[in-house]
Amino acid sequence: MFFQAIKTPGLAHVAYILGSEGEALVVDPRRDIDSYLEVLQSQGLRLRYVLQTHRQEDFILGTAELARRTGAQIVAGKHPITGYADVQMGERQRLHLGSLMLLALHTPGHTPESTSWAIFLDSHPHDAWGVFTGDALFAGETGRTDLPDPERTDENAGLLHEALHQKVLPLGDPTLVFPAHGAGSVCGSGIADRELTTLGIERRTNPVFVLGREEFMRHKLRERLPRPPYFSRMEEVNLHGGVPLARDPRAIPPLSPREFQAAAEHALIIDTREPEAFAGGHIPGALSIWKEGLSVFGGGSIRDDMPVLLVLPEDSDWREPVLSLARVGIDRVEGILAGGFSAWRRTGLPIERSGTLTPLELHERSPLYQRLDVREISEFEEGHLAGARHAYVGELEQRLPELGLRREEPVAVTCSVGQRAGLATSLLLRHGFREVSNLLGGMTAWKMLDLPVEVGPPRPAEAMPAPEEEAPGAGPRLPGTFPGSAKPPAPPR
Amino acid sequence: MFFQAIKTPGLAHVAYILGSEGEALVVDPRRDIDSYLEVLQSQGLRLRYVLQTHRQEDFILGTAELARRTGAQIVAGKHPITGYADVQMGERQRLHLGSLMLLALHTPGHTPESTSWAIFLDSHPHDAWGVFTGDALFAGETGRTDLPDPERTDENAGLLHEALHQKVLPLGDPTLVFPAHGAGSVCGSGIADRELTTLGIERRTNPVFVLGREEFMRHKLRERLPRPPYFSRMEEVNLHGGVPLARDPRAIPPLSPREFQAAAEHALIIDTREPEAFAGGHIPGALSIWKEGLSVFGGGSIRDDMPVLLVLPEDSDWREPVLSLARVGIDRVEGILAGGFSAWRRTGLPIERSGTLTPLELHERSPLYQRLDVREISEFEEGHLAGARHAYVGELEQRLPELGLRREEPVAVTCSVGQRAGLATSLLLRHGFREVSNLLGGMTAWKMLDLPVEVGPPRPAEAMPAPEEEAPGAGPRLPGTFPGSAKPPAPPR
Amino acid sequence: MFFQAIKTPGLAHVAYILGSEGEALVVDPRRDIDSYLEVLQSQGLRLRYVLQTHRQEDFILGTAELARRTGAQIVAGKHPITGYADVQMGERQRLHLGSLMLLALHTPGHTPESTSWAIFLDSHPHDAWGVFTGDALFAGETGRTDLPDPERTDENAGLLHEALHQKVLPLGDPTLVFPAHGAGSVCGSGIADRELTTLGIERRTNPVFVLGREEFMRHKLRERLPRPPYFSRMEEVNLHGGVPLARDPRAIPPLSPREFQAAAEHALIIDTREPEAFAGGHIPGALSIWKEGLSVFGGGSIRDDMPVLLVLPEDSDWREPVLSLARVGIDRVEGILAGGFSAWRRTGLPIERSGTLTPLELHERSPLYQRLDVREISEFEEGHLAGARHAYVGELEQRLPELGLRREEPVAVTCSVGQRAGLATSLLLRHGFREVSNLLGGMTAWKMLDLPVEVGPPRPAEAMPAPEEEAPGAGPRLPGTFPGSAKPPAPPR
Amino acid sequence: MFFQAIKTPGLAHVAYILGSEGEALVVDPRRDIDSYLEVLQSQGLRLRYVLQTHRQEDFILGTAELARRTGAQIVAGKHPITGYADVQMGERQRLHLGSLMLLALHTPGHTPESTSWAIFLDSHPHDAWGVFTGDALFAGETGRTDLPDPERTDENAGLLHEALHQKVLPLGDPTLVFPAHGAGSVCGSGIADRELTTLGIERRTNPVFVLGREEFMRHKLRERLPRPPYFSRMEEVNLHGGVPLARDPRAIPPLSPREFQAAAEHALIIDTREPEAFAGGHIPGALSIWKEGLSVFGGGSIRDDMPVLLVLPEDSDWREPVLSLARVGIDRVEGILAGGFSAWRRTGLPIERSGTLTPLELHERSPLYQRLDVREISEFEEGHLAGARHAYVGELEQRLPELGLRREEPVAVTCSVGQRAGLATSLLLRHGFREVSNLLGGMTAWKMLDLPVEVGPPRPAEAMPAPEEEAPGAGPRLPGTFPGSAKPPAPPR
Repeated sequence: MFFQAIKTPGLAHVAYILGSEGEALVVDPRRDIDSYLEVLQSQGLRLRYVLQTHRQEDFILGTAELARRTGAQIVAGKHPITGYADVQMGERQRLHLGSLMLLALHTPGHTPESTSWAIFLDSHPHDAWGVFTGDALFAGETGRTDLPDPERTDENAGLLHEALHQKVLPLGDPTLVFPAHGAGSVCGSGIADRELTTLGIERRTNPVFVLGREEFMRHKLRERLPRPPYFSRMEEVNLHGGVPLARDPRAIPPLSPREFQAAAEHALIIDTREPEAFAGGHIPGALSIWKEGLSVFGGGSIRDDMPVLLVLPEDSDWREPVLSLARVGIDRVEGILAGGFSAWRRTGLPIERSGTLTPLELHERSPLYQRLDVREISEFEEGHLAGARHAYVGELEQRLPELGLRREEPVAVTCSVGQRAGLATSLLLRHGFREVSNLLGGMTAWKMLDLPVEVGPPRPAEAMPAPEEEAPGAGPRLPGTFPGSAKPPAPPR
Repeated sequence: MFFQAIKTPGLAHVAYILGSEGEALVVDPRRDIDSYLEVLQSQGLRLRYVLQTHRQEDFILGTAELARRTGAQIVAGKHPITGYADVQMGERQRLHLGSLMLLALHTPGHTPESTSWAIFLDSHPHDAWGVFTGDALFAGETGRTDLPDPERTDENAGLLHEALHQKVLPLGDPTLVFPAHGAGSVCGSGIADRELTTLGIERRTNPVFVLGREEFMRHKLRERLPRPPYFSRMEEVNLHGGVPLARDPRAIPPLSPREFQAAAEHALIIDTREPEAFAGGHIPGALSIWKEGLSVFGGGSIRDDMPVLLVLPEDSDWREPVLSLARVGIDRVEGILAGGFSAWRRTGLPIERSGTLTPLELHERSPLYQRLDVREISEFEEGHLAGARHAYVGELEQRLPELGLRREEPVAVTCSVGQRAGLATSLLLRHGFREVSNLLGGMTAWKMLDLPVEVGPPRPAEAMPAPEEEAPGAGPRLPGTFPGSAKPPAPPR
Repeated sequence: MFFQAIKTPGLAHVAYILGSEGEALVVDPRRDIDSYLEVLQSQGLRLRYVLQTHRQEDFILGTAELARRTGAQIVAGKHPITGYADVQMGERQRLHLGSLMLLALHTPGHTPESTSWAIFLDSHPHDAWGVFTGDALFAGETGRTDLPDPERTDENAGLLHEALHQKVLPLGDPTLVFPAHGAGSVCGSGIADRELTTLGIERRTNPVFVLGREEFMRHKLRERLPRPPYFSRMEEVNLHGGVPLARDPRAIPPLSPREFQAAAEHALIIDTREPEAFAGGHIPGALSIWKEGLSVFGGGSIRDDMPVLLVLPEDSDWREPVLSLARVGIDRVEGILAGGFSAWRRTGLPIERSGTLTPLELHERSPLYQRLDVREISEFEEGHLAGARHAYVGELEQRLPELGLRREEPVAVTCSVGQRAGLATSLLLRHGFREVSNLLGGMTAWKMLDLPVEVGPPRPAEAMPAPEEEAPGAGPRLPGTFPGSAKPPAPPR
Repeated sequence: MFFQAIKTPGLAHVAYILGSEGEALVVDPRRDIDSYLEVLQSQGLRLRYVLQTHRQEDFILGTAELARRTGAQIVAGKHPITGYADVQMGERQRLHLGSLMLLALHTPGHTPESTSWAIFLDSHPHDAWGVFTGDALFAGETGRTDLPDPERTDENAGLLHEALHQKVLPLGDPTLVFPAHGAGSVCGSGIADRELTTLGIERRTNPVFVLGREEFMRHKLRERLPRPPYFSRMEEVNLHGGVPLARDPRAIPPLSPREFQAAAEHALIIDTREPEAFAGGHIPGALSIWKEGLSVFGGGSIRDDMPVLLVLPEDSDWREPVLSLARVGIDRVEGILAGGFSAWRRTGLPIERSGTLTPLELHERSPLYQRLDVREISEFEEGHLAGARHAYVGELEQRLPELGLRREEPVAVTCSVGQRAGLATSLLLRHGFREVSNLLGGMTAWKMLDLPVEVGPPRPAEAMPAPEEEAPGAGPRLPGTFPGSAKPPAPPR
């Protein structure tokens, strides 16, 4: 027997390779399939099946490509959404692999076609060894239930509660649970940081098993997770089992500072260095997205028809950042700043800076700053800076006009630790704000120092004068980010 | 400045990556281009040019694919053969790369379009730093001159002598020489085992510089190198800068012994284990080719339309063996024996054995054995077993009828060290020979022990009775090897 | 949370790294600790504890060295045997690591000090997440109970049954089980090939939970596992937490064939090539041990004061073979045959061969061969060749005189698949046997072909004439293997 | 033949491995010898000799350790300094390796014992293939001649000129030159960026061959290279062939922010992030040294008895930074900030910032800033900011009192590109300066923008009022850097 989990950082995604007697299957592969091929080859395993639990919304699948390259069959549950599968398996149908047997269990709720796959060590369908649950069941949570239709979040929660109780729980406490995501995924909130889990552990701790059906439905209604616009694109592309990588990341050209500057006229610059480095000096117009945030916040901030250029920490291997973007469909990375920012610096080209603030500094000089919090709404409500405006970073550009922030006056931006605030900082700079500072360490550091917070929902913004609306000339300087219309974000009237 | 040689074992081929100020060129890439992309990426170099010295006959180029993937331009000398190049450079035309300059020098003789590229550290074309010579000039030798037309071997040697004296030698003694092949290549005999060389070293030791024109022409006439049939295929495919890999080697399926056995009915088995292992037990019908011999002797023994199956040493990574075959156009590797020969052994499937002989054993029992020497003719003439028949291993199947060997009586096969003899042993077994033994250590060990040898050309075979011609039933059992006709080797009349 | 299993092939050993909030512990490390240091460094984890489940008998611990290098503390259960630990923890004492808590559970029976460590995700000692069970509980079996005292095998089985029922089983079905060995270990027979398991799965399938106490005691009495002599050495060395590697494996010199031949006069040659290769040609006097068998059968066959020389498959990395020997205390590897067997072959040095037989060949010519089966006694009793003598490979040299085999007549040696028979073949050759053949594929292939077998215990050997007793001159040619006396194995009387 | 150069970034050092017929030698190994052992093992080469060209001053040798581990002999020229060698070879004595021969050529001047080793492809000492020149001859320059005695810089230059002309040049134009350093080394200025060179190329371009003896002596007098204090320590330690690594870098503990903060009370923090990141936020008291500068500027700034803590870019492998320090004798790295600066940020611990300035900003606001240039004196003289003070970064702390800079007023620090200025910035902050800004891109960017420069030597500092002399309380906050006394740098009087 062979078993290996292959994680995708940034997406908190987990694919699995299961092998028996020389045969293997891969569950829910991501778009770039090299890692799977490496393991299969080094283990001498023949890939028989690519197994799908569900369509996936947060990344592009490698299912079709992995099958095409190896000759394996695509196996999925029976549902119109999985029309591309070679084999669609109905409820409790069996799949054999070496001496193992897998059983299809339809577990809708996160998505309508979600299928879990119970694993048995021999051909007798009792006493399961494990179960691939996809996004139906995570460690400590279930997948979100708002995706098929936000209006039916509770209804889908009910469906999921039912399916897990009726089909998965009976597999028994000893059963190992192998979900498609770990802690940090956007496909669920509150996923527990357990490397491994079992149904028995979940039965005792997971809301879906601890709470009754109605209570669980209310629980899911309270999640209010952001739904990034790229989810729709992923869903569409995954209707065919995903698409192969558009380009070998190694073949993307490193560009000299001057070539980079020229290319940037029609492209969006992404700077993945730490927030302090971005503040200390960056290329004007660049978007600041930390490495691990590239998939989720790149996917949520970049139009996928926009050419992209990357500024990376010095001596970085650029394959992983490029793949992080490719996994959410951003294929047009057209250059890397050769030699990193120090090459830019040496060339005497324009450098822009932004501010950093320590919590104590902001606390002391609070009245001088407009305050903006870009976390999720549920984080905000649990405690924020007094008087802070709120806009989730993924919606910041869209909601900027209504926030009533003045471009000419200082803004302090915060999130939990300083990374999303770094992105928001760069967005504000692109929209013509003059003095934008990132609160270093964010609300985490703020609370560590026992500084005062407010709790509760954001206050309406109307009260605040919004003089910047009268300064259209100070609008955004570079195109490329959301909202997704073909034209650049509308300048404030 | 960046400079790296990338070797291809088995082909004794060397490609080069040269970089300056962030830009790079690759000289004479092989078909599988991953290694080049890795170096370019890790060095942060932008590939500007893929530079060709000449068409190459012994492997498939990666030129077109490398250019396609990176957007680099293909640069070659001016000649109809290099019609696929983006830039064809005439005599002494200049190519700039960062702060470097390269100068095209037409150096025909090995092939008509062969071009050497002198490298200068700045834009002034004097005092060369180095020169890419392709197959025009090796360490200690030149490329063979029989390929364009065996009848004009001497004439082409004269051309090459001229070109090297007139164009390359004047670059000066201090110039570094970077040839396309090292010791062991089939593109020249007697290539020296020097990791680096300079024109001054060559001027003092290389026959092309030490000998006069006429003498050098005679020298090349004496080389008599085999010309494997796959050379013609390579030449054709390289008229377009080569073709990309047909398949990701990692995606080739490992097959269980029974699957392997079934697949072998329509495929040729290549066994790359050591000769002793092959002798101790192998799958009936398998061809024995050692790992490093796969390109040259695989290319010389396998029809490229034939499906191939591989038996490798246990726990081997199969990528390199598959690539070794792909580099000479053998793309149809359709399976690997999963678990190696020990899996086959355990399954109780048929096993065939062959013999091994130590030099002393053969010396003592010499009269019992028919003796066959499968080295190149020049090796044979320098000293062989008394009474040995000669057929170069690459021509053995074709020449078998005329050798007068009797299938029912023991044959001892020899080469220099036992590897080519291993291949010949397996070919004889496929042709129905009953008792075939590989002389362990070959003529090298034989001579180490001061056992007696004969020198001079092979004796005519007519004198020897050839009873096997009367036993058509004992013919070959499996198709797939040369001679290259679509039908299996003709059974003896 | 960080969790990773690190396997040691050949020993079927598993060490674990568990991390939480930047802190880590390693459970039961092997002697060569590089792999652990690599993981800790790449994960940015600070090693706090090296945790012992028990002393280990089948390999040397890396506990003391890992603690010394990192400053971590050694933690073990409370028992005189673990006197070297920095912290000895009594029953149900707690160890904290980041947000995790571990609980000591004394589970004797395999060894008297064996301690299992239940893992809790927080500080509350209910609802365990997992348990490190050492050799107390494996997937599908428990550790053997004959080691402390073979006379008390059943008594210790009773103790183990009790401890597992009273202390481990109550942790609950959902608890993950992390044992120190997987399938193939010499520390237990019948270990299941499950990559992961839980207490619930074990409760339903493991003999220790399925059988009653008395029945389980009888079950363990039936195991009759060999007890290799090196176990005693390991136990002694592990009383201090093991010893560091004696030498960097990379610094072992590759020797030319002639240097190797000279060194072999006072050393034992181990040849790790496949049995077929050994049969086809090997250095006279060499012992044949396959790569994966080096630890167990090297440990069981080589005196640890004997210098050792290695013959490896060509182009092998010699680090892993050297470490495989070092893990069982064989530190005196003093050279590697440079260039592998092909270099030996080329030099014309003496080559010895042995025989191979396919099952059908042996079946047909059975009367011509003395038959020797070298598997474990329980394997033998389940079905062997008619008339086969039996001696476990680890006791073959010692028992040779009593087996009544004649040195001048052919012997066919068998095991399950041909590897242990390869070792036995080489031992017989060293003892002056003239014609020894390895049955290719062993009894596995024999049974696949439905050839006839006998079942039951070995027959007494006395009946068979033993003429070789009269030929003391035909005795062993080279010293170095067991039995462990300083002088070579006594020639048969 | 085997030949490989192994480079050490940061030191611009090159060691060589030369092999022939299975035997090898390593030339001038650095303290951490893993890379050499890896190559030797993977190539199957037996190390026979560790060859020294000279003592080395800029890093600790691995000579003794490499010899001890492998059993190789240490070979050096004949001189009291090389007393530790197993073999001291006199002028033109020969060393044989496989089929190669090396000839000792005494080439003093850089150091008195410097020995070059000519390499011949066979036993005849004419027509050299290459020469290991150590620091006697580089590409485009020679080693500095001021080290044995600054007063005899010219005299030693004369000696070197003589030795190279009389002994090395006669080896002939075609000879390959293999020096111990490449471009960027502190052992010579103006080393050319050629990957390979030959004597012929050097004869035409290297000052030592182009200039006459007297002229060359004057040329060397003009070099005025800094002589970091760690050179003396290296020289002492290398009198015994160096010392092994004090600690396995992997075993250094990652520390949580609070552990790190506690440890920092008695340790020096080194921050290797980019200058912009340091400016945007850093731990108070940290020294800023970029990764590639760790050996030279760490060696030049850190007392080797001082415990050191490292802040690295996120997710960095800390082995190379730790080794960079160990190579110059800084062995007391006692912790790494776990999770990088973002972990610190999150914990709400104190953060200090410094300033950055673009060239245009400084140009516009020039009068507001005191200006400090920390490049080498020769760089300064070629063009600096108007009114800039000068102190080489390696002497800044020592010379601070005499520079007349005021702590309370802004300082702009510059170097060539911003890295040495980053170190100087952090030193000024440690000495109580309030507002220190790094000129981004340094004089390179300044000149790119055609901003005005002054040329010539620094002006005396006396004229400038030095009000900070009255504020002794504003002195340095943390000990640990040079000057080397046990007490902290004396506060300015």
